[in-house]
Amino acid sequence: MIIVLKKRADDNDLQRVLQKVENHGVQAHVSKGESVTVVGLIGDTTKVDPEMMEVDEAVDKVMKVSEPYKLANRAFHPEDSIIDVAGVKVGGDHMALIAGPCSVESVEQVTEIAKAVKESGANMLRGGAFKPRTSPYSFQGMGTAGLDILVEAKKATGLPIVSESMDAKYIDEFNEKVDLVQIGARNMQNFDLLKEVGKRCTKPILLKRGLCATYEEWIMSAEYIMASGNPNVILCERGIRTFETYTRNTLDLQSIPVLKKMTHLPIVIDPSHAGGKWWLVEPMAKAAVAAGCDGLMIEVHNNPEKALCDGPQSLKPEKYDELLKQLSGIAKIVGKEL
Amino acid sequence: MIIVLKKRADDNDLQRVLQKVENHGVQAHVSKGESVTVVGLIGDTTKVDPEMMEVDEAVDKVMKVSEPYKLANRAFHPEDSIIDVAGVKVGGDHMALIAGPCSVESVEQVTEIAKAVKESGANMLRGGAFKPRTSPYSFQGMGTAGLDILVEAKKATGLPIVSESMDAKYIDEFNEKVDLVQIGARNMQNFDLLKEVGKRCTKPILLKRGLCATYEEWIMSAEYIMASGNPNVILCERGIRTFETYTRNTLDLQSIPVLKKMTHLPIVIDPSHAGGKWWLVEPMAKAAVAAGCDGLMIEVHNNPEKALCDGPQSLKPEKYDELLKQLSGIAKIVGKEL
Amino acid sequence: MIIVLKKRADDNDLQRVLQKVENHGVQAHVSKGESVTVVGLIGDTTKVDPEMMEVDEAVDKVMKVSEPYKLANRAFHPEDSIIDVAGVKVGGDHMALIAGPCSVESVEQVTEIAKAVKESGANMLRGGAFKPRTSPYSFQGMGTAGLDILVEAKKATGLPIVSESMDAKYIDEFNEKVDLVQIGARNMQNFDLLKEVGKRCTKPILLKRGLCATYEEWIMSAEYIMASGNPNVILCERGIRTFETYTRNTLDLQSIPVLKKMTHLPIVIDPSHAGGKWWLVEPMAKAAVAAGCDGLMIEVHNNPEKALCDGPQSLKPEKYDELLKQLSGIAKIVGKEL
Amino acid sequence: MIIVLKKRADDNDLQRVLQKVENHGVQAHVSKGESVTVVGLIGDTTKVDPEMMEVDEAVDKVMKVSEPYKLANRAFHPEDSIIDVAGVKVGGDHMALIAGPCSVESVEQVTEIAKAVKESGANMLRGGAFKPRTSPYSFQGMGTAGLDILVEAKKATGLPIVSESMDAKYIDEFNEKVDLVQIGARNMQNFDLLKEVGKRCTKPILLKRGLCATYEEWIMSAEYIMASGNPNVILCERGIRTFETYTRNTLDLQSIPVLKKMTHLPIVIDPSHAGGKWWLVEPMAKAAVAAGCDGLMIEVHNNPEKALCDGPQSLKPEKYDELLKQLSGIAKIVGKEL
Repeated sequence: MIIVLKKRADDNDLQRVLQKVENHGVQAHVSKGESVTVVGLIGDTTKVDPEMMEVDEAVDKVMKVSEPYKLANRAFHPEDSIIDVAGVKVGGDHMALIAGPCSVESVEQVTEIAKAVKESGANMLRGGAFKPRTSPYSFQGMGTAGLDILVEAKKATGLPIVSESMDAKYIDEFNEKVDLVQIGARNMQNFDLLKEVGKRCTKPILLKRGLCATYEEWIMSAEYIMASGNPNVILCERGIRTFETYTRNTLDLQSIPVLKKMTHLPIVIDPSHAGGKWWLVEPMAKAAVAAGCDGLMIEVHNNPEKALCDGPQSLKPEKYDELLKQLSGIAKIVGKEL
Repeated sequence: MIIVLKKRADDNDLQRVLQKVENHGVQAHVSKGESVTVVGLIGDTTKVDPEMMEVDEAVDKVMKVSEPYKLANRAFHPEDSIIDVAGVKVGGDHMALIAGPCSVESVEQVTEIAKAVKESGANMLRGGAFKPRTSPYSFQGMGTAGLDILVEAKKATGLPIVSESMDAKYIDEFNEKVDLVQIGARNMQNFDLLKEVGKRCTKPILLKRGLCATYEEWIMSAEYIMASGNPNVILCERGIRTFETYTRNTLDLQSIPVLKKMTHLPIVIDPSHAGGKWWLVEPMAKAAVAAGCDGLMIEVHNNPEKALCDGPQSLKPEKYDELLKQLSGIAKIVGKEL
Repeated sequence: MIIVLKKRADDNDLQRVLQKVENHGVQAHVSKGESVTVVGLIGDTTKVDPEMMEVDEAVDKVMKVSEPYKLANRAFHPEDSIIDVAGVKVGGDHMALIAGPCSVESVEQVTEIAKAVKESGANMLRGGAFKPRTSPYSFQGMGTAGLDILVEAKKATGLPIVSESMDAKYIDEFNEKVDLVQIGARNMQNFDLLKEVGKRCTKPILLKRGLCATYEEWIMSAEYIMASGNPNVILCERGIRTFETYTRNTLDLQSIPVLKKMTHLPIVIDPSHAGGKWWLVEPMAKAAVAAGCDGLMIEVHNNPEKALCDGPQSLKPEKYDELLKQLSGIAKIVGKEL
Repeated sequence: MIIVLKKRADDNDLQRVLQKVENHGVQAHVSKGESVTVVGLIGDTTKVDPEMMEVDEAVDKVMKVSEPYKLANRAFHPEDSIIDVAGVKVGGDHMALIAGPCSVESVEQVTEIAKAVKESGANMLRGGAFKPRTSPYSFQGMGTAGLDILVEAKKATGLPIVSESMDAKYIDEFNEKVDLVQIGARNMQNFDLLKEVGKRCTKPILLKRGLCATYEEWIMSAEYIMASGNPNVILCERGIRTFETYTRNTLDLQSIPVLKKMTHLPIVIDPSHAGGKWWLVEPMAKAAVAAGCDGLMIEVHNNPEKALCDGPQSLKPEKYDELLKQLSGIAKIVGKEL
């Protein structure tokens, strides 16, 4: 941490700031420049709150030098983390191929889709039972009945289940029925939920990026889960909000190489929610694999025209099948197996 | 709702779309233009999901004509809503003057601040007991002990209490101890929490705007609370994220006149969180009152340099006192009483 | 400037970086922390290009400590700049009250509006002769004929003229006919134009903020003009792009107190373009004055329904008259004269 | 175009609006809904200014149904445009492989890089002679001398030259020396420049996307050039501004499939400027090819550590060589030849 003093700060100011720094148990290192005096903090500064320094009237600004995250930090854990989801490995060379409908609608629907996507090569089944919707008047998901349908589909296909939990009260139920628990974009900074799934959730977590979250904020949310006791976090990029209105959101594929520098956690891409249009899924899925992602989460529906939600962004099973074929060639070039 | 067909759509396409529209129980009205055919929907379209239409291969886009919110809509409730917070009225000509520390730290601290701000003219006391922090390693608030301290301060001053609830599990406790329950910016789209405070919270809600939320999304979150049974919602603008990094966030004061067109709910401004710097509070508070806001929420701390959080954005009590004096002149000009 | 080395940087790396620093004629100051080594640069670092340091393979990041602007910097020029526009002072206690139509349409139109706004208290006349339009098929302004009409209106009223120049080729003409030359938001980083108006324009410049520009970028554009020889720059906030689509742009009134810290240049607010709706002008103009702005630029049209551009955001003369009356009370409270 | 009337609009209002519509030479089609009346415009509405309608006091909002661009519109020109740059074809199956230094520094530098990238497979040479820099104190490019060096390098290698023109006054010189004229991101809405290169530039234009431009705004800028007489426009995505500060900008690869729907113009990706870090170039270049782009513009420098600008984002020639080898496999899978 670097503390920049105001131009008019005098020696008394400097001494007071140095005293504060030492009260935090870290050492200070002063550089007096021509017009600016800078105080460097040496030692473990993760517990020094920048605001406590910034509030001093002689301080101009406080700049962080180290990352505020530790457990998720690649620097302290150079190897890729490989997360085990009911036997399916994610990370390193292992790709998560998650597919299924936006919403669970019926046993027939989910089982039919599950069989089809498994046939194509998917290794996990997604389906929403609790749905975050912008409007209270939209379909809110089947809830517990929906989870039970997913369990049926798992029995029929063996595919591990991915589903979103919107509240801590469902954790026990998810521990029992679901294999990878999704935390949605709108809950990325629901800190109580993060702590609870950290403490009590026995399954790995798929943490979606918030709509306007920076990489660091996203990793800090993973750090919340990890610091609370659950080290098994997979990150999922699903598009960020930009000024573009033609697409639902803008998929940020730079996140793949950047996150691989910052953290050892796997990163999965969701091209369906990012673009909001089915015809964007194919080119963006190819691009994501080419950029080195650890998995893809794709919406597949056997009858998108009748889907209760997100029909416009769902692929039909035959399109998904074609897509996986094309992806396998690209995966090989970048050194991954599909 | 308006459905725009693709340029190449033929009569069969049109008939299929018309059939779908009628299946939703609304009437269709066709306009054939030179290059585009447009279908207008007539009747109550709030239950028609635009996505169900958009997924049709002959549909180019679907445009909403009416607002998707009803209970919060000014059009259906032309009078200003006046919300009663433990006897203090907010809305219409009545201004909420909420002040207090970011975090509750001790009985002495809170009571001292509460007395000072009451003396200056504040009519509600704010204080954080449960704190949403970006880092799991930052101070997370005193929790229940913090709420109890606020109750003490209320006994000493009579000021109603405003505090943030981050999870539905605290609702009973907040019903007992708090007078205005804050839902934070990061929980604005925590739909489970919105539904629960709608159903079970007996106190009015102060709903903060999300960091990248549009006005419509914000009102839809109010609509969630109202549709679940709690009509007493106050909106609070606290700055949105922009590319500017000098300030914490950018305060959007256009929200005041715009929201007054869109909704009948009161709107309160929080200049402390928006700018993140104490010296921005005074000019922005003046501007907010001049623009016609229904209240101000301002952080006041008796010792900002030692504040456990948000010290840099807190006013000292004497500054707050001066500020209210200046505000009262501006309030008079825009027809409000402070 | 602070150079943060990578965690794995060794002594050879450090020596190489120090050598580079010294090659730039500045001194280095090394702080070795537990996990990070930091090199502080001491001396005049405005000529050290951060990228030249960042490219070193041992460097993690480079952080600026001083502002990159000098001529516009409040630190080196503590007094408010007062700009003289054909006898009208702007800055300090002096307010610019600029009003007029978006586009010049006819002598009658402009003269009628000019007389009306002067009567109400305006001290400058605005009018667009060269119009930046998103579409090549929209009305592009009357050009030279438009400037001549403004000159006529000046003769009739004595009001100095404000108009936008979109290209350096018009500078001579603007020097002759216009009193305050506007550089539009879309040209804020048209660096050739900035240099040319710095070198050859004999009149003060009104520099609008780019749609997604930060304060620092905006001031750097003023610095371009000043460094090229024209010290008379007035900044104009006209709204920034955000995710909100209800309004054209979002007016950032925090810019007023922040810019007053960063720079000595005056700041004028344009509430008409920011909101894009006439009924937002009144509350936002009041807010801007309450926040301490140095002037207002407001679109006034005698017949907004027939305006060739920006009709929806134009006030009628009688509304403008009412507005100025209300503003004068607020101005008094914040210590300005209208 | 759709005009939505206010809820309280009566028959007189409707008649007035219909009259206005007819005055514009288009037909109106009225749909009276339960709570809203909607007027659809039929005929060529490109010349109807939405603002002229929006300003009517009975009008709630105006919604566009057709795209405002024609010459660039895929709907009116279904075939891919193939642009010829001094014999190198771009578009359809033909990929532009543009490489070279950010800034021209010397004949030796440019010629050495040009030979190396040609050897690797590049088919055009880029180099900046006129540089848009945020600071007036940064290196501004070699100007005319820089263009002459590029001409030398072309003689030595035969590679067509790509370079940025920042002002219309350079057009004749660029016509003589340069093969593909770049319009930079900050000039995307410098409408005078767009018109001039449309009228007078005899070479194709590479139009970069503005930092916060939407697809439609970007295409409208291409439309400006085309409507002024130059139909040869190549679009170049170079990253947009987002809240992420770790990277310089965020590369938007959804632009590739979306623009291919909207327009027939080719789209080239610049991963160097987008990320601002050399190690992001490889994964993003692969992703761009996988997503179907028509070309790549990549910064290559023989000595990035000494580059006068943008060193951190430049590849060394040997890295570029490796990259092209990997790209050719991906290109084959998506049906293109490198």
